[in-house]
Amino acid sequence: MPVATAQQTPAAKSTNTAGAAHTMKALRKLRAEPGLWYVPDAPIPHVGPRDVLIAVTHAGICGTDRHIYEWDAWSQSRIPVGITTGHEFVGKVVGAGSAVQRIQVGQRVSGEGHIGCGVCQPCRTGRAHICEKVDIIGIDRDGCFAQYLSLPEENCWPVDPKIPDAIAAIFDPLGNAMHTVMAAGVSGRSVLITGVGIIGLMAVTVARAAGAGTIVVSDMDDRRLELAKKLGADLSLRGDDENFHDKVRAATQGQGPEVLLEMSGSARAIRQGFAALRNGGTVAMLGLPSKPVELDLNNDIIFKGATVLGINGRLMYETWFQVENFVLSGRLKLDPIITHQLPLEDFERGFKLMQSGEAIKVVLKMPQA
Amino acid sequence: MPVATAQQTPAAKSTNTAGAAHTMKALRKLRAEPGLWYVPDAPIPHVGPRDVLIAVTHAGICGTDRHIYEWDAWSQSRIPVGITTGHEFVGKVVGAGSAVQRIQVGQRVSGEGHIGCGVCQPCRTGRAHICEKVDIIGIDRDGCFAQYLSLPEENCWPVDPKIPDAIAAIFDPLGNAMHTVMAAGVSGRSVLITGVGIIGLMAVTVARAAGAGTIVVSDMDDRRLELAKKLGADLSLRGDDENFHDKVRAATQGQGPEVLLEMSGSARAIRQGFAALRNGGTVAMLGLPSKPVELDLNNDIIFKGATVLGINGRLMYETWFQVENFVLSGRLKLDPIITHQLPLEDFERGFKLMQSGEAIKVVLKMPQA
Amino acid sequence: MPVATAQQTPAAKSTNTAGAAHTMKALRKLRAEPGLWYVPDAPIPHVGPRDVLIAVTHAGICGTDRHIYEWDAWSQSRIPVGITTGHEFVGKVVGAGSAVQRIQVGQRVSGEGHIGCGVCQPCRTGRAHICEKVDIIGIDRDGCFAQYLSLPEENCWPVDPKIPDAIAAIFDPLGNAMHTVMAAGVSGRSVLITGVGIIGLMAVTVARAAGAGTIVVSDMDDRRLELAKKLGADLSLRGDDENFHDKVRAATQGQGPEVLLEMSGSARAIRQGFAALRNGGTVAMLGLPSKPVELDLNNDIIFKGATVLGINGRLMYETWFQVENFVLSGRLKLDPIITHQLPLEDFERGFKLMQSGEAIKVVLKMPQA
Amino acid sequence: MPVATAQQTPAAKSTNTAGAAHTMKALRKLRAEPGLWYVPDAPIPHVGPRDVLIAVTHAGICGTDRHIYEWDAWSQSRIPVGITTGHEFVGKVVGAGSAVQRIQVGQRVSGEGHIGCGVCQPCRTGRAHICEKVDIIGIDRDGCFAQYLSLPEENCWPVDPKIPDAIAAIFDPLGNAMHTVMAAGVSGRSVLITGVGIIGLMAVTVARAAGAGTIVVSDMDDRRLELAKKLGADLSLRGDDENFHDKVRAATQGQGPEVLLEMSGSARAIRQGFAALRNGGTVAMLGLPSKPVELDLNNDIIFKGATVLGINGRLMYETWFQVENFVLSGRLKLDPIITHQLPLEDFERGFKLMQSGEAIKVVLKMPQA
Repeated sequence: MPVATAQQTPAAKSTNTAGAAHTMKALRKLRAEPGLWYVPDAPIPHVGPRDVLIAVTHAGICGTDRHIYEWDAWSQSRIPVGITTGHEFVGKVVGAGSAVQRIQVGQRVSGEGHIGCGVCQPCRTGRAHICEKVDIIGIDRDGCFAQYLSLPEENCWPVDPKIPDAIAAIFDPLGNAMHTVMAAGVSGRSVLITGVGIIGLMAVTVARAAGAGTIVVSDMDDRRLELAKKLGADLSLRGDDENFHDKVRAATQGQGPEVLLEMSGSARAIRQGFAALRNGGTVAMLGLPSKPVELDLNNDIIFKGATVLGINGRLMYETWFQVENFVLSGRLKLDPIITHQLPLEDFERGFKLMQSGEAIKVVLKMPQA
Repeated sequence: MPVATAQQTPAAKSTNTAGAAHTMKALRKLRAEPGLWYVPDAPIPHVGPRDVLIAVTHAGICGTDRHIYEWDAWSQSRIPVGITTGHEFVGKVVGAGSAVQRIQVGQRVSGEGHIGCGVCQPCRTGRAHICEKVDIIGIDRDGCFAQYLSLPEENCWPVDPKIPDAIAAIFDPLGNAMHTVMAAGVSGRSVLITGVGIIGLMAVTVARAAGAGTIVVSDMDDRRLELAKKLGADLSLRGDDENFHDKVRAATQGQGPEVLLEMSGSARAIRQGFAALRNGGTVAMLGLPSKPVELDLNNDIIFKGATVLGINGRLMYETWFQVENFVLSGRLKLDPIITHQLPLEDFERGFKLMQSGEAIKVVLKMPQA
Repeated sequence: MPVATAQQTPAAKSTNTAGAAHTMKALRKLRAEPGLWYVPDAPIPHVGPRDVLIAVTHAGICGTDRHIYEWDAWSQSRIPVGITTGHEFVGKVVGAGSAVQRIQVGQRVSGEGHIGCGVCQPCRTGRAHICEKVDIIGIDRDGCFAQYLSLPEENCWPVDPKIPDAIAAIFDPLGNAMHTVMAAGVSGRSVLITGVGIIGLMAVTVARAAGAGTIVVSDMDDRRLELAKKLGADLSLRGDDENFHDKVRAATQGQGPEVLLEMSGSARAIRQGFAALRNGGTVAMLGLPSKPVELDLNNDIIFKGATVLGINGRLMYETWFQVENFVLSGRLKLDPIITHQLPLEDFERGFKLMQSGEAIKVVLKMPQA
Repeated sequence: MPVATAQQTPAAKSTNTAGAAHTMKALRKLRAEPGLWYVPDAPIPHVGPRDVLIAVTHAGICGTDRHIYEWDAWSQSRIPVGITTGHEFVGKVVGAGSAVQRIQVGQRVSGEGHIGCGVCQPCRTGRAHICEKVDIIGIDRDGCFAQYLSLPEENCWPVDPKIPDAIAAIFDPLGNAMHTVMAAGVSGRSVLITGVGIIGLMAVTVARAAGAGTIVVSDMDDRRLELAKKLGADLSLRGDDENFHDKVRAATQGQGPEVLLEMSGSARAIRQGFAALRNGGTVAMLGLPSKPVELDLNNDIIFKGATVLGINGRLMYETWFQVENFVLSGRLKLDPIITHQLPLEDFERGFKLMQSGEAIKVVLKMPQA
């Protein structure tokens, strides 16, 4: 396990409001190469007047964290070396800045990792998730793979006590799925979900609970296709099925799906999904392709009269209300998605389980302070 | 002028309901090569029980007609040789099938050239313009570059007597512009129109009348850029302006346009427009690229939270009501767009004026029957 | 059983297209007083060039039919004496006018009873259900409580063979419920349904299938409240429950329902529902009060930022697609709602069962021709 | 002029951040009776850590202020005696709390007077204007008819330097008009505005700039009807015109207006407006009736398929962006609406000018500190 000391890290000017402790355990990106480093004595983050300090108890590993771990091209262009990673979490508020008004020490909170500038048009109109200057925890500033996290109070989401920690820790990705499903509008409509990775699988159970008609999913991983059916999909298809379009049409009133939820980021799946879409249909795009994608705009969008929605993050905070209400309704199947819960120190194993496809969602448990 | 006889044409089984006349003058696509042929003795089209026969008086030349005239790749793949071309028109009803209920002989009508199947979901829900089996006059079946046109009565649009013939003849392309503008929703929003050909120019005056905020246009033709300003654009930019994005941002609250109306079909302009779009903005795409276009989906659509709308034809018949009401309001500037009115026999000159860029919209006047 | 002959009826100039038969059995409103009359020799209705003749097999009794039967103030003002009543049905096409294009003799069809003028803005924009000059079968012209019904072909809805006759016969009221639920938008939102008569009960099962969050219902009839729970309501409340608002709030995140589906027509329930509605909520109003209702517009609508939707009939034909898809999905519980199927001759018993509250939906079976 | 000392007022525990001054001039509601009192030595308001202190330079008198001045039933039930009144203003930031991040001392700001709780669903979803616990300045807490105003920084709106003070001072009511117009959606649609008081007149010029089709207005005041025409109305009608409906229909394609903006609060005008509305039309209700109103729900809303929107305040802060952009576009006519600018001390005259109908909008100028 790679270990490093706080002296190597760039965020040393913190203010300690976490009781007697002066340092904490954290996973940091200490070098511009694959891997994350377990730092036993990272500084506890600074808490500004409007921030709270959260003692993180559980944190989910996101596909984005895996990109950072593997140090792909995107990570190299975006991630500041030295940062504490992680952005999905639940924990307990243990400190509060002088101007904090709405969150109390002692509350259990999850939180929104997108921190908007607060002055631009999106931020001022309930759409801070598309702020041009957004800072994201674990990506642009220190995140939640650590014993402590500093977060503006308005980014905190107090979690209903009836919701288990492991679920509360993944409100962020569940929010991605929720935002995608609700933006597209699936109630009574046939749906194709291209790509059933973590968020695609969540989208299956969310779409089913949200009143979707027929749900078809596609992927190249048979295990996930199988799991998707357990979560509510009516039909699971391999992306390379040679009768893909005929089978999709047969399942969707002979006309193709009214809604496409694109969650693969695969150019092939994107084109396949657009081609399958019914005239007048809606596409919600969440999956991130690794490079530009060639689209037949005439046949896929223009003649079809399609509506295409770019989906980023979660609505702040409409999506959070939806996530909490759906979870409390008991109509979501999330347990089959959270396949592993591991102590922070076993993070290497967590990433390897994700890489092998053995795990779906891995939740890390923080050491007690 | 190429001339041909009816014997060479494929639509000979017509029923004559046009008084004593048995043949008519028409422009037909007689051979699979560039050009159109003036046919002095084409058969008068068949009128079914629900159809009316219209004595066409004025017909607009569309960019699509130019593609057919030039016999480009798209035309070769779609147009049945022998067809009468043209789909923008106004005329007078001179005959009616036995089951016609709502249109009277004598009415002046323009009409919708998209003829839906009538049974599919789009046709049954007020969206026949995206019927999968739509037949378009002048493309899939005989059109209006002729003395007579047969059309289902429900596709007829009785035109208010206060509207001049030349304007009534271009309700179809004006409807394309209207549908694009109204689908995007420009009221109080900043707008970028990429491409100010015929429909782009119409979109300028429609967007201004529909309450747009700042209107910026781009094109590669300086004359059209100049005309766009006369029609209501606040800023006209060449697409190759090296400070394009800075200038667009400066004109749109520093954030880029809230609405992009894509009317060029140019891959370069499409990418430029998406890049300029404000986060959370709306794109309405009408221009048809000649081949697939590579898009940076992450930055152009997904992270941006953009909404992209494919625009095809006109809403049947919401758009027609809007076109008529806008024209009657006196708030549209259409006269500068209709640059030429020519007799049918001069069609070659009309196409050449369009090709040279000298003409914007050319309207053909039919010979009296 | 009141019996009358065709001579007493006003619609004698029919054209016979129903094989050898010249007359048919029908329920008619022969006198301006309570009751319906069984006419054994009513004329078979006229079939115009665009109409089909349907041999009705099953017809539902609507609350409106009961108003006509009881001859209330509304009926006296609207119903032409002599008319054949009934507007919910399924049957088989046995004849077709000369210009019929899309419906074939032999098809099983249900149908939309609202016959629009075809030329007004609503009719021309997919909203014929709000045509100002709409004719409704069984109300303004002869209806379906008869062996034969004449209907424009475009009002026919071919029914999927997997759907039983009794369900196909009630697509019309199920469409009322569907239109109300889908217009309001219940996916993931808490819902209060005031009034669980026939359509209110249908709305419960539709809302559940459409992805509603918590569903609360209110009524004054304990049997219906009980049935509503079986159909998917989470909480059933009597309208006179003295802790009504506290209980509704407790069930809806402490803020009241996000959606109100008003299906009672009761002034008291309407006011109670508006008062319960969450700020920013949506109200869909279907129930018809018997006289004007006093509303506290400031607190119920304006300060609350509410959206109120008037719901009339069904979308033509978006709602019909939804009804068919929901029925085929197997996610609706309709069997408990169709409590009785009776032969046409027992219509008096059917009305009495409805009046006593013993029946929910009664379906009449037509005698074979 | 009634004068009082700070000792009589309830808000004495202020923190002074306004330089050497310890008191200020203010208009206060000192007694539970008609009138306002000019207090020369009111305490300067307290500034919390997230608040700024604004030296008010201009403040508009709202119809609500007139209700408070006249001490009507609503005021008696809502206004705490002792409060400083006024909620429309522009001024300069002269002090800032310790946690203020986005607003700088020296900025010219107008501001939103609705102060949400910050934790409820509306507040967390960009709709703080319908927070159940909203505090409004000048109504629930001290307002802007004073030399100094304390306001949360997030409620501040920095005003573009090109906008004159008198216009900046009325962004609040202009925002009411803007919110109403934009919520209804007037682009290309015919509009009836019932009631052309201050906000109704603003709605005329906003609707015209926002792309409305025909605009009809109604009122009982001939001067205002005349002014409405200057601002862009196509037709001005007295509410008691005996041919009201015929004239409205004649001006709106024979079908009535597609949009009703209800700005009178008069029961008669409300019913008249609903009756005139086209089937499928939209109503935005802003005017506040003084008591419950009886509506014919069947004919006015349900059969008509109407959409009714309750309009409260302004969207926070979508409306503010719209207001600024429309004002900067130069397309609004506001000068004829601001009829008087008076020094604070002449407030009695301002109210009397409003009561007589001589003034439309009166702006008070604050004495220099």
